[in-house]
Amino acid sequence: MDLYEAIYSRRDVRHFRSDPVPDSVLIRVLDAAHHAGSVGFMQPWNFVVVRAPELKKLVFDSFARENARAAENYAGDRRSLYDSFKLAGIMEAPVNLAVTCDRSRRGPAVLGRGTMAETDLFSTCCAIQNLWLAARAEGIGVGWVSILDPETVKRLLEIPPAVVLVAYLCLGYPIQFEERPMLEQAGWESRTPLDQVVFAERWNHRWSALSPE
Amino acid sequence: MDLYEAIYSRRDVRHFRSDPVPDSVLIRVLDAAHHAGSVGFMQPWNFVVVRAPELKKLVFDSFARENARAAENYAGDRRSLYDSFKLAGIMEAPVNLAVTCDRSRRGPAVLGRGTMAETDLFSTCCAIQNLWLAARAEGIGVGWVSILDPETVKRLLEIPPAVVLVAYLCLGYPIQFEERPMLEQAGWESRTPLDQVVFAERWNHRWSALSPE
Repeated sequence: MDLYEAIYSRRDVRHFRSDPVPDSVLIRVLDAAHHAGSVGFMQPWNFVVVRAPELKKLVFDSFARENARAAENYAGDRRSLYDSFKLAGIMEAPVNLAVTCDRSRRGPAVLGRGTMAETDLFSTCCAIQNLWLAARAEGIGVGWVSILDPETVKRLLEIPPAVVLVAYLCLGYPIQFEERPMLEQAGWESRTPLDQVVFAERWNHRWSALSPE
Repeated sequence: MDLYEAIYSRRDVRHFRSDPVPDSVLIRVLDAAHHAGSVGFMQPWNFVVVRAPELKKLVFDSFARENARAAENYAGDRRSLYDSFKLAGIMEAPVNLAVTCDRSRRGPAVLGRGTMAETDLFSTCCAIQNLWLAARAEGIGVGWVSILDPETVKRLLEIPPAVVLVAYLCLGYPIQFEERPMLEQAGWESRTPLDQVVFAERWNHRWSALSPE
């Protein structure tokens, strides 16, 4: 698949078909993730492939608890809209994937990390985006579930205390790839025009190439 | 360009030709970044396009100071090897790009962020990876400079105190895209085999699809 096609048709997917994801496809997607750049070639990531229904159920329970709590932030129409959203496909997705960052990998002095310690986490996120796009090219949907208690998930998957859970992803063949992000389609938020997020030379200075007078 | 080709041939580039990057190309690359997913459709990122030589020079000065400090972490052969690395192409790259995350965008209750507050930073990194790959498809190299003082760069670019500098990137047409990452080529670090970063069901449990007995 063409890169730009993958970028523009990538979606956060929550509705999955039950067809299994072949190991060979999953390996291609994981290898793409593993070929992201990383600070000091640290490769601080790990991927825990979760397929066991009993494990998925325990993660789902954490999602359900945290989602009930999150819903309390909203009232009235906004609350009704929130409650109408399907925010995770943990049980339906044939593959769940925990993505972690081992912050102590390669010792204390990682090249390039002395000034910005969080670059190991940032590298891990670059790997996740590679994975997300590779999955799209394979016809596989990915949903990022952030509504859960990271410490609970770590305990369930026996992830060491010092390792950070960066993402919990659901993977599977989607019912469909939507035209637009769900939250845009539902009117929850709108896409910011590009000329409002790009500046020239200094913060808040408009770039004439994007905003001709 | 094919997605997998972009993923496998993307490099962290530090040697640039002086040819300018056309605005139209830069806009395509920035628009690709802006189409990353983000928690609660928050789109917390901004991009400050820096081309003014006097600004680049001041950023370079911060890099030079921090790089001298970082070199002190190494001794002997390792120090000689470190000193031989070109770790940034700030002055040569026709375009520098500061990528930021506004952690307060869309108010205090962003959908999906209540449980994992760092997901706004993580979304910004997904946007950076989109940009990196789109640049590769356009024949443009990107180098991520983490060896600098983020607060100095923020002051130079008038980035508000509450906004986080996530990355400082150099963009331009490269002398060439190397076959392998510089740090691998130089023997500084090696690529971890995939079966050591992927586990099944639980941490440290090998996945039979990758490690047949």
